[in-house]
Amino acid sequence: MADAERIAIIGLGLIGGSLALALRRARPMLHISGVDLDPRAREQALKIAIDEGYSLEDAPLDDCDLVVLATPARELLALLPQVAARMRSGAVLTDVCGAKELVCAEGARQQRVVFVGGHPMAGNEYRGFSAASPVLFSRATVALCPPAGREDAAARKAATERVRALWLSAGAEKILEIAPDDHDRAVTFASHLPYLAAASVVDALTGCGAASELARELAAGGFRDTTRLAGDGTVGGAAALNRFVPAAARALAEQLRGLADAFENDPAAALARLAALADERRRMPMPAITATGPAPRLPSA
Amino acid sequence: MADAERIAIIGLGLIGGSLALALRRARPMLHISGVDLDPRAREQALKIAIDEGYSLEDAPLDDCDLVVLATPARELLALLPQVAARMRSGAVLTDVCGAKELVCAEGARQQRVVFVGGHPMAGNEYRGFSAASPVLFSRATVALCPPAGREDAAARKAATERVRALWLSAGAEKILEIAPDDHDRAVTFASHLPYLAAASVVDALTGCGAASELARELAAGGFRDTTRLAGDGTVGGAAALNRFVPAAARALAEQLRGLADAFENDPAAALARLAALADERRRMPMPAITATGPAPRLPSA
Repeated sequence: MADAERIAIIGLGLIGGSLALALRRARPMLHISGVDLDPRAREQALKIAIDEGYSLEDAPLDDCDLVVLATPARELLALLPQVAARMRSGAVLTDVCGAKELVCAEGARQQRVVFVGGHPMAGNEYRGFSAASPVLFSRATVALCPPAGREDAAARKAATERVRALWLSAGAEKILEIAPDDHDRAVTFASHLPYLAAASVVDALTGCGAASELARELAAGGFRDTTRLAGDGTVGGAAALNRFVPAAARALAEQLRGLADAFENDPAAALARLAALADERRRMPMPAITATGPAPRLPSA
Repeated sequence: MADAERIAIIGLGLIGGSLALALRRARPMLHISGVDLDPRAREQALKIAIDEGYSLEDAPLDDCDLVVLATPARELLALLPQVAARMRSGAVLTDVCGAKELVCAEGARQQRVVFVGGHPMAGNEYRGFSAASPVLFSRATVALCPPAGREDAAARKAATERVRALWLSAGAEKILEIAPDDHDRAVTFASHLPYLAAASVVDALTGCGAASELARELAAGGFRDTTRLAGDGTVGGAAALNRFVPAAARALAEQLRGLADAFENDPAAALARLAALADERRRMPMPAITATGPAPRLPSA
């Protein structure tokens, strides 16, 4: 991607804001328009991350070689065709949504642009541009769903390469090309089940009556880490767009019930199963801890 | 607690080893005997944390003013009366087990010693003395179950104060005196449900067939943090000694199933519930991140 290119990032929250910050560092000559409905986010971003700030209505999307949709999941699906219709013919549109089947299907319907589905596997429980960090994607894996079913294979390939280069510039370590349904099935286990489990544990704690206050006092690092993801209010939106989630969540519930029964009926078997899972977890390669916690607060306007 | 006192720590793993290291720093004159069945752990500990190392058979427990049982949960319950029988009459016995009803009931049966139940709310997924850290308990909360039902109130109070002073020396920030059943009920929500949820998520990932490999590649910080606790093979032992766990785990399974149904039947309601839980989680005061990850490896013998 040449540095003279112009891109727009729609949504200057944690993900879009972090992408702008990372690209500003890695490619200072890249022209970045930031689009957000919150004027304060635009003001903050203008100081350190973007060249121009716009509301969506005013954004000159037809000037851009590439547009990144980085809004929450629900809005994203509705915005996609509106944004595509305002872009230059043949330009590249991409996104960051954690659900890919529905989004890529909508993207494939846009004849005007080449849509490449994207999903950076990074995030934290904080929100908004003030939580954005230039190292959020450092060493991250990014899933890409290249466009399928269009005639012009060369344009498809070029669009995918352009989005790949964008994420590598932003610090990503690995780009994984993947079909949308494979993505959604895998992310169900990698992201949505952990999220729903975390939310359910918070739900249990808040609903346990008299024990709740004491439980909060006794909550240590294990509770903090297991439930951290529950504080991310944006994962649910992607889970709601993923057709594999309900059945997987019901299977997870069955596993929990099975463990509960085993504790009563055959504790030795329950402990053996848990020890095997502990071994399994310890053997799993895990992403390094890079950019957790909120970024330092930016100066207010 | 005077520094001329002699204590023994039985079990030089993550918890017992960290306690020895913390006390060595805070109270250099305190005489610490370390007891472990692994000669290598004793050798490592002798270099930096303890004055003398023993196997359990050889340990001069009758020399000690205070003995800390820091073995895994299952062994601990069986060891407690054996250890008490070998201690000096009137000395203080305490433990670190994450289940308190059964352990404190066994402790109360020991007429020879004064038993004070203890449970430091700290830990990580690593094991053994080589994972121990002198700051593991830094700023931690420690639950204490003072002895009840004995005649000598002054001795009971003095024993509790002695154990309290031990943990404060080790870096604890808050000592919470609590009845064993209240402890077990609260810890079910603060510790055991997060643990079982984490283990179930690992179980789901390992059992999802073709999606498993891809899911592992896509696992990011959320998966890492939610499932970290599943790698702690010692929590299960305490969960197996806690009578509140099975019903709470079944209730958690019901909550998960309810969320799954809501995603299918009323996604807006599901998302509203998840957003409320995200807010709830963000409002919860959480322990600071102090000593996560393994301590630097100690020099080998």
